Amino acid sequence: MELAKRAVEIQASPIRKLMPYAVQAKKNGLKVYHLNIGQPDIETPEAMLKVYHEYSEKVLAYGPSQGLDVYRQGLVDYYARQRINLKENEIIVTTAGSEAIIFAMMVVANQDDEVIVPEPFYTNYNGFATMASVKLRPLTTYAETGFALPENAEIEKAIGPKTRAILLCNPGNPTGTVYSRDELARVVEIAKKHKLYVLSDEVYREFVYDDAVHTSIMHFEGFEEQAILVDSISKRYSACGARIGCIVSKNKALMEAVLKFAQARLCPPTIDQLAANACIYLPDKYIQDIRTEYQKRRDLVYNELLKIPNVICRKPQGAFYICVKLPIEDAEDFMIWLLKDFNIDGETVMTAPAEGFYATSGMGRNELRIAYILNEQDLSKAMKIFRAGLDKYLSLKAK
Amino acid sequence: MELAKRAVEIQASPIRKLMPYAVQAKKNGLKVYHLNIGQPDIETPEAMLKVYHEYSEKVLAYGPSQGLDVYRQGLVDYYARQRINLKENEIIVTTAGSEAIIFAMMVVANQDDEVIVPEPFYTNYNGFATMASVKLRPLTTYAETGFALPENAEIEKAIGPKTRAILLCNPGNPTGTVYSRDELARVVEIAKKHKLYVLSDEVYREFVYDDAVHTSIMHFEGFEEQAILVDSISKRYSACGARIGCIVSKNKALMEAVLKFAQARLCPPTIDQLAANACIYLPDKYIQDIRTEYQKRRDLVYNELLKIPNVICRKPQGAFYICVKLPIEDAEDFMIWLLKDFNIDGETVMTAPAEGFYATSGMGRNELRIAYILNEQDLSKAMKIFRAGLDKYLSLKAK
Repeated sequence: MELAKRAVEIQASPIRKLMPYAVQAKKNGLKVYHLNIGQPDIETPEAMLKVYHEYSEKVLAYGPSQGLDVYRQGLVDYYARQRINLKENEIIVTTAGSEAIIFAMMVVANQDDEVIVPEPFYTNYNGFATMASVKLRPLTTYAETGFALPENAEIEKAIGPKTRAILLCNPGNPTGTVYSRDELARVVEIAKKHKLYVLSDEVYREFVYDDAVHTSIMHFEGFEEQAILVDSISKRYSACGARIGCIVSKNKALMEAVLKFAQARLCPPTIDQLAANACIYLPDKYIQDIRTEYQKRRDLVYNELLKIPNVICRKPQGAFYICVKLPIEDAEDFMIWLLKDFNIDGETVMTAPAEGFYATSGMGRNELRIAYILNEQDLSKAMKIFRAGLDKYLSLKAK
Repeated sequence: MELAKRAVEIQASPIRKLMPYAVQAKKNGLKVYHLNIGQPDIETPEAMLKVYHEYSEKVLAYGPSQGLDVYRQGLVDYYARQRINLKENEIIVTTAGSEAIIFAMMVVANQDDEVIVPEPFYTNYNGFATMASVKLRPLTTYAETGFALPENAEIEKAIGPKTRAILLCNPGNPTGTVYSRDELARVVEIAKKHKLYVLSDEVYREFVYDDAVHTSIMHFEGFEEQAILVDSISKRYSACGARIGCIVSKNKALMEAVLKFAQARLCPPTIDQLAANACIYLPDKYIQDIRTEYQKRRDLVYNELLKIPNVICRKPQGAFYICVKLPIEDAEDFMIWLLKDFNIDGETVMTAPAEGFYATSGMGRNELRIAYILNEQDLSKAMKIFRAGLDKYLSLKAK
């Protein structure tokens, strides 16, 4: 029986590709420090878990397709604190950020239309594009410049007759890059000129370090009809398993269309929305503490990376990732070697080869992404193993 | 800013279309008996709610994309009791039945390919088809024959070069019809002859009455490569808000493709899966009691409907719906009138006009779907209001 073309073509998760090596390493008795995935180790807020513990309805019923009223009201409060003033009907709750992006692609682009996205990018954008029958057009950015957005001319070169939108991830996964207001303003101007939507994935909004300030696509006045924000509580509140996100726009016709897609799948999970709502009223200190923690970890990883000769890495200011270019040929080969043939006192480390984050063939082969999602002590050990492993790997390759 | 064509074309929920009239009726102080939606009133099992209450992990983490191991093992047990013998990797847990159907459509059909579906059908299939860029080709069935499947020649007439699958809902929403083993065997033979997949939505599996026995598409030997089962716990355990479903097939290549789609969206909700798993080990009596309860309600509604002169309705044997043809011209007009202009002692009733369940233009205008999702006492009152309303409406129309 033949399958659909898209079923054959859809990208298998490059992040999960190396998992069998990790499983085997563990079977061999090794401890593996996982810096390869975006699952935070930070505890989910008590206030959120309490909602599950105290749920008292007798029937676990459907909620409204647009999300529970109480949670949409909560989100209005949350966004007001981000200097984004919204009405409830400018928010539709989704089953995680994934669904928000899929819906956004489906409402702005027809089959075979194009969406521009700076690469390296979150690999699952590929899967979402396949589901929406949309083509991603990559705009290459480079480790050398901290994965900053290209010049206007470069961006405009990527725009063709089928281009419908620009998709940004800010702060960036896998880069950790935070776009400045000026960079975003350039994108907004280009989008206005070419009548494109800008789809902004801001799930790491709170995780910005040093003097960086996060600018949302919703902060640009006069751009309301073209701005679409996609969001998720997964990283913000260490609640990846709750699957609660949302899509936000002030474009009325667009939100009416999103609602129709939302109605078809009935609703996002009910109790998880109530739990998400509890997070909105956490004290500011909750996020401040996490930010401080992640910043320390970023400094630790970055300082360790700087000790590697010929490494190329600009200090990223956001998310919990660092994307680094190493003096090797093939990061995947290095990673498999770390899992198969290297350990220190029975411990090794796993990161994500970055090639899978690029759509342009051959790009990113000597890069990898490190997710700093372990406590300082473990992270410190993991980075020491990483550096020692790289030393050894380089000396073996030099032979 | 232009939207995508599909964003404009996607069907707005016909079930929700009349909601403003219900809201207004309530504002005017009326009580409305809702027989228009598929939200059961039966209580969610204690054992399921207990899982939320006792969740004790510190981090609400991502689960595997294919679903939690413990729940997939549970599903293997559940299906074994349904005489469906599965291995874990023949099951992928989805975010409700909705996602299962979307994934199934995406893996079997290319853009603009066709899926045949008997009408009247669950309206959200339209939305899923739009999301998957697939066309639904309706196969009309009739109240006069209890919405039985058409003759083979009629089915084969609907098959064209772009047909990839036949989608069945068994027991049926909105019809309540249970397909006999012989009827299904005919579909299986046709599917074999024309190399089509059969996608079987069996979320009402347990709700069969009288002497009816449910036959699953997974019960046909030699059809394993073409059979796809989509399922959900929403109705079975009155847990619509948990959003847990699954897709089942013994076709290895197909399930590998589904897994790639599943990986893109990461995972279904974590705690909700654990909660769903608790339901698998409920005593048989749980479902038996619910079946008895629904059968009593079906009898009540059916007997009330029989009292209407010139009504056309065969006694349905499954789900919790009855689809009925009334001696009126326009069921939607009747429904709006019931909400706006009729009440008995401050109470009125709402059902779902069936036109929205048909893809063929003009079909079903004089039909409506009654969901018997209220306790007997309320249902009895609601049906009395319904009959009295219809009497009055007919007499007004006759003037």
